[in-house]
Formats: sequence, structure tokens, C-alpha cells
Amino acid sequence: VRVAGTTESVNFNRIPEPNEIQLDPNAAYVHLTSNNTIFGTQWKSFPKTGNVPLIGDMSSDILSRRFDVSQFVMVYAGAQKNLGPAGVVVVILREDLIAKGRADIPAIMKYSTHAENDSLYNTPPTYTIYLVKLVLEWVKGLGGLAAVEKRNEEKGKLLYGTIDGQGGFYKGTADPKSRSLMNVTFRLPSEELEAKFITEAQAAGFGGLKGHRSVGGIRVSMYNALEPAGIMALTDFMKEFAKKNG
Amino acid sequence: VRVAGTTESVNFNRIPEPNEIQLDPNAAYVHLTSNNTIFGTQWKSFPKTGNVPLIGDMSSDILSRRFDVSQFVMVYAGAQKNLGPAGVVVVILREDLIAKGRADIPAIMKYSTHAENDSLYNTPPTYTIYLVKLVLEWVKGLGGLAAVEKRNEEKGKLLYGTIDGQGGFYKGTADPKSRSLMNVTFRLPSEELEAKFITEAQAAGFGGLKGHRSVGGIRVSMYNALEPAGIMALTDFMKEFAKKNG
Repeated sequence: VRVAGTTESVNFNRIPEPNEIQLDPNAAYVHLTSNNTIFGTQWKSFPKTGNVPLIGDMSSDILSRRFDVSQFVMVYAGAQKNLGPAGVVVVILREDLIAKGRADIPAIMKYSTHAENDSLYNTPPTYTIYLVKLVLEWVKGLGGLAAVEKRNEEKGKLLYGTIDGQGGFYKGTADPKSRSLMNVTFRLPSEELEAKFITEAQAAGFGGLKGHRSVGGIRVSMYNALEPAGIMALTDFMKEFAKKNG
Repeated sequence: VRVAGTTESVNFNRIPEPNEIQLDPNAAYVHLTSNNTIFGTQWKSFPKTGNVPLIGDMSSDILSRRFDVSQFVMVYAGAQKNLGPAGVVVVILREDLIAKGRADIPAIMKYSTHAENDSLYNTPPTYTIYLVKLVLEWVKGLGGLAAVEKRNEEKGKLLYGTIDGQGGFYKGTADPKSRSLMNVTFRLPSEELEAKFITEAQAAGFGGLKGHRSVGGIRVSMYNALEPAGIMALTDFMKEFAKKNG
């Protein structure tokens, strides 16, 4: 692996700028993860990689917004964020690449096996796939991907607006240009207040707000399934908490 | 692969007898599949393999009967027959074998990875696992594995009794000593009658009775979830059909 671009020096608090990405023109492919669930960053547009094929892991933000799939030779995504229950992976692969897969791996691991058998080589996780279908129908009912994108942008505007609007009590950890609409990370003035925030939020019905163990702080995950009303209620709680503890 | 025993010469219509199994004492392991879904045969007891470790694929009859797990160094089973929905596999592995796994395979494919991480190295198929829990509670509610075993034996007695009791109209394809309690395979006097049987059964509410495409005939799969009343109704239909067409 050759790292083409990284913001490690600033603790991954933003997505690399186009001029920070050094592609090897002979690379077999370049890989990115479209949304970082831990640091709360997200690629807003994808880098132009010219002749170097681009592969994207979109596990944590597929189906959250529109994007031009033709920029990628391959997109893969575990279903467990926006698509359905854990246990199924969606793979979009440019057809000519199927034949380029390694031959020396087990049949079940080859994309060619699944492509040739219409994804029915083995017994697939049928019930999970059925649930993905229900989720896709739900998205259609909301008005399709464009409507979901708008819904996510509104949730983001509300939550980031609340973070920024309490006189510095909350501090978003991601650079504003790289802020994720899926995972929102921020800090409070002290770790004691963060612990208090998490406890009181839990008591008020807001669970799972503890930041990833590797970074601490607060993390609000707001995948498609989270209704805007949930963010509305949370931001009310946040304003109240800031007022009392600021 | 070295074949230690086979009944291919009789079209796999029975399980090999103990004296037909020729073990290589130096084999790393010997593998068997406890139930054959296509030919409708099932190991009633497992061969004594001495120092040669025994590994069993029990995908299609795990949780259908009691067995002495200590005969095996490893048992694995896809959930999709008796345990729950497709998409999860149960592995029972003797602890000292974990370390003997190949080192040159991806981390996710190593049993050691999953053993060391309490099966939580990756996001497991949570909802599917939850459904397996519900199935296990259902089995408990029926009276546990002993009760399920008895229930399956009674279903088998009823169905095989009906096959054998219509004056030869139905012919079980598996040797009586090897008859599976999960998949019951039989033929009718002609392929025309088999087609008629399948059509009329379907109309009467009995679906999925067509034998596996590689063998033809009729196959009744009666995994745990099939209530005895279902077999009762099917045997009534079979008696009636034999009377009319015999």
C-alpha cells in the first residue's frame, strides 16, 4: 500500500485537498473511504484520478446522497448503516474488471463467481436482502435519493448550526469543509462535562452519543433511519445543556 | 482429497457401512456431511475414526436431534435449515485446533481471529443472529432438543409409513437404514404421475415437492419448522392420490 494522501498530521480532522493527493500513475487503483465514522469527515466531491481507477468503500454513506457512480470502477458497501441489517454487502463493479480478479482464491471469494451466477452461487442471506428491499422501498416513498439527500442536509444544518451557535461551548472536531452528514463529532469544554452530557442525554432518551473509543468526545450518528425530529429534539437538549453548564 | 468411503455405485442411496470406510491413519482429518439433502440420506451414527480427527458439515440437520459432539473436532453448519435465516454459520471447533489454522489467509477468514475476538472482530449479521436466538428459544419452548428429536422421528414415521404403505405406489429412494428425517425422497410409478402429483399437491397447498434437479422425483423437506400437522395433511393427500392413480 502506498498512501496517496493523508491528513494524519492534523489528526484526520479534514479530507485531503486535491493538491495534497499524490497519485502514482501506474497504481492498479486508488482507494478511498467516502465517510469517516470515527473522525466525522466525509468526501464532498471525489478526486479526479485520471487513468488511475478509483475504488470507494461507501459502507457508511451509500444511499445518503446522490453521486456520479461513473467516477468509480468499483464501489462496495456493507449494508449496516443506510441499506439494511448487517450481513450483506453491495458491490458495484465495472464489468471489465470482473475478469481481472485473482484466480488463486477460493471460488466463493471471486467476484466472477457471483457475477456469473447472478449473485446466487451460494444461498445468499435471503432475509437480510429482503429487508434491504424494504429499506429501498422506504427511500422511494420518501421521494427517492434526492429527497433523502435534502433530508440529510437539513439534519446536518440543524445539528452543526447548534454546535456552532452556543458561543463556543460545543466545538466541532472536523474542519467545516469536511463535516460528515452521517457522523457528527464534537467536544465540550472538559471531559467531565462530556461525561455529564452523555449521562444526561441518555436519561433524556438520546443513546449512543459517546465518541469512538479511539478519539473520545461526542459522536452523533444520523444515518438515514434517524428522523429529523430526533435531531430537533437533540438540539433542544443541547441548547438547554449549554445554557445550564456554559 | 482422498475419498474414504462412497456409495456412488448405488447412486448414493445409502450411507457407507463402517466396513466400507477406509481411513488413512495419517489423514489430517476426515470429513462427512451428516445429512444429504439431495438423496435423502442421513448418518444415524457417526463412524469411529480413532486418531483421525472427524469434521462434520451439519448444515442440514443440526438442531434436529441429539448427538455426541465430542466425536468431532469440528462441526460447522449454515443456519438456513433449522437454526435461522441464511447468512450465519455456526462453528464448533476444538480449542487446540484454532492455532493450527493456516496463517497465509486473510484475517477475516481465520477461526483464530473470531475466537480471539468473541466472534465480534467485524460487525456480525446482528439481526440474523437475533433470529437464531428466537429459534433457539422456540426449541426450548418445545421441550428442548430431545423433544425436537422425538417430533422429527414422529414426522418421519408418519411420512415413510405412508410411502411404504400404499402397495408400492410410492418408492422411497433411500435405503431404509439410511433414510433422512429432514429430506424424504421417493418416486412414483412414472414421471408423468410425478408431474401430476407435484401439480395437484401444489394446488392443495403443498409447495416445493419437486426433487432436486439432479435426481428428479419427489422430495419432502421437513426441517424443524414444519409442524407435524403439515406432514399429517400431506400423507392424507398422498393416500388419496395413490388411491385415485394407483
